[in-house]
Amino acid sequence: SKVFEPTDHQHRRLNPLNGQWVLVSPHRMKRPWSGQQEAAQKNDLPEFDPTNPLCPGVTRPNGAKNPDYKSTFVFTNDFPALLENVPEPPPGDDPLFQSASASGTCKVMCFHPKSNTTLPLMSIKEIRDVINEWIKEFNQLKVKYTWVQIFENKGAAMGCSNPHPHCQIWACSFLPNELAIKDIHLKKYYETYRRPLLDDYAKKEVLKKERVVVENPDWLVVVPYWASWPFETLLISRTGAKRISDLKASEIENLAKTVKELTTKYDNLFQCSFPYSMGFHGAPTGEMAGNVDSHWTLHAIYYPPLLRSATVRKFMVGFELLCQAQRDLTAEQAAARLKELDGNKHYLHS
Amino acid sequence: SKVFEPTDHQHRRLNPLNGQWVLVSPHRMKRPWSGQQEAAQKNDLPEFDPTNPLCPGVTRPNGAKNPDYKSTFVFTNDFPALLENVPEPPPGDDPLFQSASASGTCKVMCFHPKSNTTLPLMSIKEIRDVINEWIKEFNQLKVKYTWVQIFENKGAAMGCSNPHPHCQIWACSFLPNELAIKDIHLKKYYETYRRPLLDDYAKKEVLKKERVVVENPDWLVVVPYWASWPFETLLISRTGAKRISDLKASEIENLAKTVKELTTKYDNLFQCSFPYSMGFHGAPTGEMAGNVDSHWTLHAIYYPPLLRSATVRKFMVGFELLCQAQRDLTAEQAAARLKELDGNKHYLHS
Ligand SMILES: O=P(O)(O)O[C@H]1O[C@H](CO)[C@@H](O)[C@H](O)[C@H]1O
Ligand SMILES: O=P(O)(O)O[C@H]1O[C@H](CO)[C@@H](O)[C@H](O)[C@H]1O
Repeated sequence: SKVFEPTDHQHRRLNPLNGQWVLVSPHRMKRPWSGQQEAAQKNDLPEFDPTNPLCPGVTRPNGAKNPDYKSTFVFTNDFPALLENVPEPPPGDDPLFQSASASGTCKVMCFHPKSNTTLPLMSIKEIRDVINEWIKEFNQLKVKYTWVQIFENKGAAMGCSNPHPHCQIWACSFLPNELAIKDIHLKKYYETYRRPLLDDYAKKEVLKKERVVVENPDWLVVVPYWASWPFETLLISRTGAKRISDLKASEIENLAKTVKELTTKYDNLFQCSFPYSMGFHGAPTGEMAGNVDSHWTLHAIYYPPLLRSATVRKFMVGFELLCQAQRDLTAEQAAARLKELDGNKHYLHS
Repeated sequence: SKVFEPTDHQHRRLNPLNGQWVLVSPHRMKRPWSGQQEAAQKNDLPEFDPTNPLCPGVTRPNGAKNPDYKSTFVFTNDFPALLENVPEPPPGDDPLFQSASASGTCKVMCFHPKSNTTLPLMSIKEIRDVINEWIKEFNQLKVKYTWVQIFENKGAAMGCSNPHPHCQIWACSFLPNELAIKDIHLKKYYETYRRPLLDDYAKKEVLKKERVVVENPDWLVVVPYWASWPFETLLISRTGAKRISDLKASEIENLAKTVKELTTKYDNLFQCSFPYSMGFHGAPTGEMAGNVDSHWTLHAIYYPPLLRSATVRKFMVGFELLCQAQRDLTAEQAAARLKELDGNKHYLHS
């Protein structure tokens, strides 16, 4: 009987943030791939495209004209999934047919006037402007809404329908599933250990080192022990921030640097504009803002789909949808690759 | 103030099988789409391809030669995510770094010797052979394994790496997340109502009619009230079967007819070989086979990604990964479209 080697032998790992297990099958990296190939993101976008509704000065299909913006630009999505005022569904008494009200708003935030740039190619100052705009929007929306989700879908592979650098902010009147579950798990840990779970986790990862990708006094980026996507990362505040609105100027500056470093590494990994969905999670707001939130730590999660190259992605399909997430390489293997990549020099600049 | 209209006004719906809410935003169907287009599945596959490792008589990359099979053919995946014998991880005492053992096996089942066919194009007799083979495999694997997942990833959009008609069977030594959660929810309902949740649900849907897609004495197909994927369906046993191994000859015959009818409707919807991931869920097996299973009902779930056409899919990305599932058209709208489509005549045959 052999000794257990995490890089050779399949096993499961627990995500303490949601109680879900991930199946890790590192030996599977050896299989050939003959399925769908993603179109690699091209670098031939024009700086300005008069038909792109996110460009400065362009008139959008609904007739609104964008200002000639020079930095960031925020507007309400022309086709929002959440509207502010809609009639509420009647209360139902059947446990099998339960509905509930949902109101909210969906905003789009352009990061930069130029279509042919992305966060890793922007300057620290420009990224800082983006973070400051996130905080401004968050502060406005947090008054009314229980949950404010800032997120970026980057790349066609992640359903992004417009290549102009932008993110979205959806605010909602309810606490969405993932947050409701996370809140329970964080609370349970806090009740036992009297410390926020992610504070403890960050401290332990700094000592263990093997999953650390980027580290500075304010922020830690790791491939979490329980990652499901191949190169998933977790960006954790090390200063006790609970919401993005808690950040001080120096933490914002370091966040800009951290985002640039992480996304540069991502682009350098497969020498492409690396697709992902990312977003921030912190303590709830709105009518939940008054609740105890000592169990929360501000963090961002990056879910990138690529597995082997710019064109071969991981599919979360049959077994994953019906049973549970499965990954090939281990979190430590992914972290080692990201760690050794250059985070300062982008491959397009060499 | 207006009256609530489910087809106009956003709301949330509860999935009683897992306790998760889905955001329904029907007004969003009006938005234009300029993002990624899927490659429509072509109909020009050859019947036989000597380089395709799933074809009869072909030697696979690992040196094994396929028999000259005439119906179904099952073999162990050459690159399985689960192996039968691997060393177990050592027990860990840190709640933030928990791992557990996982053993199992992964099989591939070819549905038919010809590469250029799919379930909707196969005869009832040929589909029956597939179901009988599913049951045979299930009966073998259920002795040793806690969970036997029969599933089909169909189409490149669902990560299917080989167009030859086939499915997979993954058996595992543990109860995967989705099933662990479902087991709890089904049990809780049973404890309150003394009837299996999905039996009650099927009976109510038959009376309500508005979400029914296919109906016969043994099986019911509905777009579930809580569907997250645009044209998601739930195929429920109406005879009290708890596992696929419980099916009698007449139920197998009707299942073959139901599968053919549903998948024909799917193909006719956008006139393409409709991609999906599907799989069966029933009472657990192996060392859990002795547990009380009165709360279970055998069912299959179809998760198809397409939203508007053969080339425009729904992406479950930023908001969905970070918060909760979101859908555009309502379950009733999807069901009405599927119901009215021809389930007997495939578009390629007209
Ligand atoms: O069929 P394959 O090529 O083995 O693999 C496919 O299905 C598996 C099970 O859902 C997934 O883990 C893979 O990501 C997917 O590409
Ligand atoms: O950015 P878009 O085009 O509004 O939409 C994209 O992100 C949304 C939020 O994650 C998803 O609901 C859509 O499926 C996706 O295509």
